[in-house]
Amino acid sequence: MLDEVVGLGAVTMLGVLEQAYFSLQVIHARRKYKVSPPSTSGPPEFERIFRAQANCSEYFPIFITILWTSGVFFSPGEASAARVCGLLYLYGRLRYFWGYAESAQGRLAPLYFSAKVLWVLIGFSAVGVFLTFCRVYLDVDLLQQLGSALF
Amino acid sequence: MLDEVVGLGAVTMLGVLEQAYFSLQVIHARRKYKVSPPSTSGPPEFERIFRAQANCSEYFPIFITILWTSGVFFSPGEASAARVCGLLYLYGRLRYFWGYAESAQGRLAPLYFSAKVLWVLIGFSAVGVFLTFCRVYLDVDLLQQLGSALF
Amino acid sequence: MLDEVVGLGAVTMLGVLEQAYFSLQVIHARRKYKVSPPSTSGPPEFERIFRAQANCSEYFPIFITILWTSGVFFSPGEASAARVCGLLYLYGRLRYFWGYAESAQGRLAPLYFSAKVLWVLIGFSAVGVFLTFCRVYLDVDLLQQLGSALF
Repeated sequence: MLDEVVGLGAVTMLGVLEQAYFSLQVIHARRKYKVSPPSTSGPPEFERIFRAQANCSEYFPIFITILWTSGVFFSPGEASAARVCGLLYLYGRLRYFWGYAESAQGRLAPLYFSAKVLWVLIGFSAVGVFLTFCRVYLDVDLLQQLGSALF
Repeated sequence: MLDEVVGLGAVTMLGVLEQAYFSLQVIHARRKYKVSPPSTSGPPEFERIFRAQANCSEYFPIFITILWTSGVFFSPGEASAARVCGLLYLYGRLRYFWGYAESAQGRLAPLYFSAKVLWVLIGFSAVGVFLTFCRVYLDVDLLQQLGSALF
Repeated sequence: MLDEVVGLGAVTMLGVLEQAYFSLQVIHARRKYKVSPPSTSGPPEFERIFRAQANCSEYFPIFITILWTSGVFFSPGEASAARVCGLLYLYGRLRYFWGYAESAQGRLAPLYFSAKVLWVLIGFSAVGVFLTFCRVYLDVDLLQQLGSALF
């Protein structure tokens, strides 16, 4: 069991470290632009970094949930696709954060990219849950049936 | 193991899709009311939708955590109660989002409803963790003992 | 499996209850300082409580993720260290919330404390994932090799 999920654990760790990096950037921006808590308003440079981190934090639990759902309900071979998508998502988020820190426009391309990767992961999870459901409750192995029908 | 949790996986998927729907609504509202990021202030119609999504996002990790804790630490039969509560919670959140988009008042009834469902799930989890704890560390099966005492 | 993670389940439950307590405090503060949703601006006393809860909510999924990653990828004996860190983190967050409600300055010491505990948990997870990785993919048990080298 542990052996199958260690790859997911590694991607999860990277995700947590990325969130830590974003949080440190906000602390740094608060000092640079002299915006003391609890205020969250300041110059646009600060607000962009603050919103970038807030947006990434908002999506973090969705990402982790969907990463593990697709990783666990897929068969081990297919699970590596989930891990690759996980890495692509984290890369997209890093580009998003840097882009947003530069300009509001700069966040768009990587935002669309990471949204698309997230939809792929959601698709993987949905298929994985659906196939497991068929196997458990209807006693039908759709993948195997599809295989027999094709070959 | 997978077989026992596939129902939780299905509820989780629905929860993720609901969050995706809320996020798309905010993007739509940003365009409709011309509120460009990083700003989060605008006409009350926009702010209600923004806050509705923010509130749902804030509770999403708590919901997922408690859904799985109650689903995993309960015996399989009782776990279906956790799944039903999960679906009720997601339904309540949908009503909450639509109600809040209409008026600040409209969010209240579904908010109280989904809060109550969440408390039921928290109660399930607490009981499940407590019973497992007794079984593992005190070697006492409280459910069985209760059964013998009653019948 | 369940037996090994029931301690993590108990810490998770406490974390959820703490978040519930923070949420109730914000509802209470909204009434006391007459700040009706969707507004999130008000007197500094309200904004500090609001931001304290928002910050704790933001870190909640990171905390839960890292608690379970370190608890699951560590061997059972070491996992108790993860549970102790989990309890320390929750204690630090409670002190943070109370401190922030008093003054912006009052949040700092418990914030640094809980950040340090989180870094310890991140370190545990990283080591746990790394050791499992070596065992699974390189077929090397580093802990055992280290043990043989030392004694």
